[in-house]
Amino acid sequence: MSAPLLGHLDPLFVRAMDDVQALLRYVFETNNRLTFPVSGTGSAGMEAALVNLLEPGEEVVICVNGYFGERMCEMATRIGARPLRVACEWGGPVDIDKARQVWRHSKGRVLCAVHAETSTGVLQPLAPLRDIVDERDGFLLIDAVTSLGAHALSVDRHRVDVCYAGSQKALSCPPGLAPITFSERAVAKITTRQTPVRSWYFDTTMLMEYWGETSGGGRAYHHTAPITMNYALHEALRMVAEEGLVARAQRHERHHRALVAGVEALGLQMQVVPEYRLWTLNTVRIPAGVDDARVRSRLLNEFDIEIGGGLGVFRSKVWRIGLMGAGSTANNVLLLLAALEKVLKAEGVKIKESGVSAALAFYAEQ
Amino acid sequence: MSAPLLGHLDPLFVRAMDDVQALLRYVFETNNRLTFPVSGTGSAGMEAALVNLLEPGEEVVICVNGYFGERMCEMATRIGARPLRVACEWGGPVDIDKARQVWRHSKGRVLCAVHAETSTGVLQPLAPLRDIVDERDGFLLIDAVTSLGAHALSVDRHRVDVCYAGSQKALSCPPGLAPITFSERAVAKITTRQTPVRSWYFDTTMLMEYWGETSGGGRAYHHTAPITMNYALHEALRMVAEEGLVARAQRHERHHRALVAGVEALGLQMQVVPEYRLWTLNTVRIPAGVDDARVRSRLLNEFDIEIGGGLGVFRSKVWRIGLMGAGSTANNVLLLLAALEKVLKAEGVKIKESGVSAALAFYAEQ
Repeated sequence: MSAPLLGHLDPLFVRAMDDVQALLRYVFETNNRLTFPVSGTGSAGMEAALVNLLEPGEEVVICVNGYFGERMCEMATRIGARPLRVACEWGGPVDIDKARQVWRHSKGRVLCAVHAETSTGVLQPLAPLRDIVDERDGFLLIDAVTSLGAHALSVDRHRVDVCYAGSQKALSCPPGLAPITFSERAVAKITTRQTPVRSWYFDTTMLMEYWGETSGGGRAYHHTAPITMNYALHEALRMVAEEGLVARAQRHERHHRALVAGVEALGLQMQVVPEYRLWTLNTVRIPAGVDDARVRSRLLNEFDIEIGGGLGVFRSKVWRIGLMGAGSTANNVLLLLAALEKVLKAEGVKIKESGVSAALAFYAEQ
Repeated sequence: MSAPLLGHLDPLFVRAMDDVQALLRYVFETNNRLTFPVSGTGSAGMEAALVNLLEPGEEVVICVNGYFGERMCEMATRIGARPLRVACEWGGPVDIDKARQVWRHSKGRVLCAVHAETSTGVLQPLAPLRDIVDERDGFLLIDAVTSLGAHALSVDRHRVDVCYAGSQKALSCPPGLAPITFSERAVAKITTRQTPVRSWYFDTTMLMEYWGETSGGGRAYHHTAPITMNYALHEALRMVAEEGLVARAQRHERHHRALVAGVEALGLQMQVVPEYRLWTLNTVRIPAGVDDARVRSRLLNEFDIEIGGGLGVFRSKVWRIGLMGAGSTANNVLLLLAALEKVLKAEGVKIKESGVSAALAFYAEQ
């Protein structure tokens, strides 16, 4: 990020943009032409996805099993669409039967869901969602903010029509950009809209001419791209490619499983059942009687470790432990387990056995 | 920007946010509580200003004397407002009589104008615009993308209700943030809206609880702020404060005037009459018969100097020479004049006299 600035239409920067797009196609596992970073953070990606794909008055089915599904409903309402909520239990995956039912009873052409619910730690399988929308050639819109670069997304294989993420999660880039990709079908829906996209800043019909090419060749000025942020994303994506998506996924899984072994050895419980656990974001139930905020602030102040508190209905119910991107390492797992053990003991919680020993035993078996 | 990342609710980062806000109040010359950087580039500031202050169906008077006034109309239309254009000549200031007439014949409560038209090089006086809106207690919304940190803005003295800028112009920070400020009257209009703000990402009613405080104290999570960009803005604003707004304005004026002396000595003409010239963005008429693109690409390739081409009706008619922030220096003026002289001669243009000598003579008189 400390590299000298370039103009946003400078030939060298345009080359860097091409690189960023090619690398994003690699991590999304897609050949989608319209793949680029939105000039904003993850929530800007969510807004860009919805405001482009949906028209005012259009019904849209949104699966809500956590905080970010809820946010999608809120955004969809604001842009004038009519969200039909598939209300599911927090901490579990989408209720597929319910989603299918809502889909069948709606006129919506778009189904939205969150691949990695940062608020609950749940990983959502994509295939059953694709099956639902295929019943009438629908569009699948997926939030992958906390999975891109860790869990396989396979955008093309799952035929996801719109998928967005954030730069600052498993890609380990500073926050400030939201990678997004649109299928050709999604592009066709957008370019044949009856109404203009309600947001000028996020309008992909214009952004296509900056991140792609104008009909006359060359790039059209839209807004000034955050140059330095794009340098950072360029480097972060190069590091993902260097490690390789498969090796990266295995690393995330390994350290997640070591953490789970340690957490359970301490006598704590994971919130999510094993088959739906995210590797990047681990939700641990807070034992009864433990002061949530005090434990977190002791971890921060005594060990420089920040873990997340619960959001929404999970407030004061779970801790959210991130192990993503460059942060998914054995050292982080061991240090967190050691620190947590010390803090819990100091708070009077009875520890079952050493979390560190359990994690080390897990690693030794690998 | 290479400082370690912090969480977006980390106490240290919250302190940095407070600093950024205090420094922004200094450069905007305002005491407005709601003053913060929007998480996007300058155009995101424009969208945030309009989407918060205007409701669907609301008439809004927009002065158009260049590319960015036009963009405001486009954005206002998309968010459902009804823009009334005050069409003025490109390269001149707003036609005040015409603006007053449109204002009087409209039901609009908001008047929008561009303080520094980046497309034409025109500086717009704010006092006559305030006079117009005062006829019925209206709101003044000002684009200061290319003036903040160079020309005095005096937001409070001119009673500007909403003012936004970009980080990458006269503040000399990388692009990626859009400083914005709202008067208490503007905040009152926003908090008593009949309809929710159509953009979730830019909704200041929620951003207030992140950049300000919740009713219970503390900060509420909205979206993840671009941490690193905020570090950069923090440092850029510190440098503005260290130099001082008055000294900074004088520096911008001095180098602008030196450039004008040099450009006119070469036999070229400035596009804008002296009293409305921006110091940050200098529009020079392209002499008849000169190949616009070739001159600009020679400056870039032979001297590493990028100057802007004309936008809209000024395409191929003017060059746009930026002298802003850290770039407003005698060295840049002299180098540009020397390079331009060489390139113009090579292109067969007859030069009147040395631009460099004229600029040096100007500096010697100071």
